Amino acid sequence: MDSRKKVEVCFSPNLYSLHKEDADIVVVIDVLRATSAICAAFDNGIKKIIPVSTVEEAIEYKRNKNYIVAAERKGKIVDGFEFGNSPYSYMNENIKGKTLVLTTTNGTKAFHTAKDAKHVIIGSLINLDAVCDYLFKEYKNVMILASGWQNKFCLEDTICAGAIVEKLLSSGKFNSEHDSSIAAKFLFLSARDNIFGYLKASSHRRRLRALNLNKDIKYCLTPNQTDVVPIRENDYLVKG
Amino acid sequence: MDSRKKVEVCFSPNLYSLHKEDADIVVVIDVLRATSAICAAFDNGIKKIIPVSTVEEAIEYKRNKNYIVAAERKGKIVDGFEFGNSPYSYMNENIKGKTLVLTTTNGTKAFHTAKDAKHVIIGSLINLDAVCDYLFKEYKNVMILASGWQNKFCLEDTICAGAIVEKLLSSGKFNSEHDSSIAAKFLFLSARDNIFGYLKASSHRRRLRALNLNKDIKYCLTPNQTDVVPIRENDYLVKG
Repeated sequence: MDSRKKVEVCFSPNLYSLHKEDADIVVVIDVLRATSAICAAFDNGIKKIIPVSTVEEAIEYKRNKNYIVAAERKGKIVDGFEFGNSPYSYMNENIKGKTLVLTTTNGTKAFHTAKDAKHVIIGSLINLDAVCDYLFKEYKNVMILASGWQNKFCLEDTICAGAIVEKLLSSGKFNSEHDSSIAAKFLFLSARDNIFGYLKASSHRRRLRALNLNKDIKYCLTPNQTDVVPIRENDYLVKG
Repeated sequence: MDSRKKVEVCFSPNLYSLHKEDADIVVVIDVLRATSAICAAFDNGIKKIIPVSTVEEAIEYKRNKNYIVAAERKGKIVDGFEFGNSPYSYMNENIKGKTLVLTTTNGTKAFHTAKDAKHVIIGSLINLDAVCDYLFKEYKNVMILASGWQNKFCLEDTICAGAIVEKLLSSGKFNSEHDSSIAAKFLFLSARDNIFGYLKASSHRRRLRALNLNKDIKYCLTPNQTDVVPIRENDYLVKG
């Protein structure tokens, strides 16, 4: 009997139900850009983040001046909102101590997909080592849930998941059984010396580049810029 | 406007609905072992194959002596059946001209998932070049549907899908937009010099090795042993 804890990767919210039995702790990933923006916001002093599923819910919160409200669809800030999911928009003194309400195309959807999970944290390349340290400390069975693009497999989330898998497996304390985890690790190992170049072909990078978001992409693909680990508490996120 | 046809990869029957709009022709893959066995059976003279979803349906056909009836679950021949999904069981003079009824854990399920597709063919590593030649000749938008393992992503189907993507893209006549297709190609390129060794870590190879099926695995992972391309006609398959 293998006593190591498991670390497995789920490539899409649509496959979550097939993997969830394995998971005591779920790491939600949306590298471009929701979970990177969430980490950046906490790193810059946001106190609480409420992920919501729909633009309509976000609009409800706009009536209350105590909230910063952000909405993104298909890579763009939704009309009528000042904030979207660019990490740079949260590098701002004015957000300190405030609550952010956020809806995005993929990341907040994945967060809600994992609503029945006991324990949920937010991962991205920018907080990679901090997430791994957290997982070593908790030492539970881990499922890394990639948000993907409209529920389809996406490369940048897979590479981030592979980076976590690789670090956890290298310790000898974790084990992976599913091919998705093995493939994520393979893809990370091919990409790690030049993640930005490797992802040149990825569909989401092409999509964001067309929106002139190259600066955002570079930020989101640079590992270990913060040590915050956002953690779910009730229906919102706090800094762990 | 890009006038090239598309070749995309769907990693699981559970993701089929997200990809199906892209597909004029669906290539169903279950390398270990259903689609390899199907190709081997046609190569050895089977006239028609009827894939069925359940063991109960297969039992119905057993009452009629004109059918060869095969059932596999979790890598093993189901009790009461003589045939499962080992390609070697179809290398047999007695099957010539007969109709095979087949139910398997993953492959026949994927076949039924694509029931609404206009055009369905069967691919595997053993008929790789023949499948590619067929796709060049048809020249339509292609979706490669990996059967996976119990709807989860699996490596061997992904590598076979990646081999088809690589060949179609190299011609300059096809284009891929989804990250799943790009990842499949990357994984194939890493694996191609030693597919058998590369898959050592895969969960399904471990599963079949535990059942003493190494000979089957070697056969299924050896490209281009036959030029048959099984094609769906009504609810059954014939040799294309």
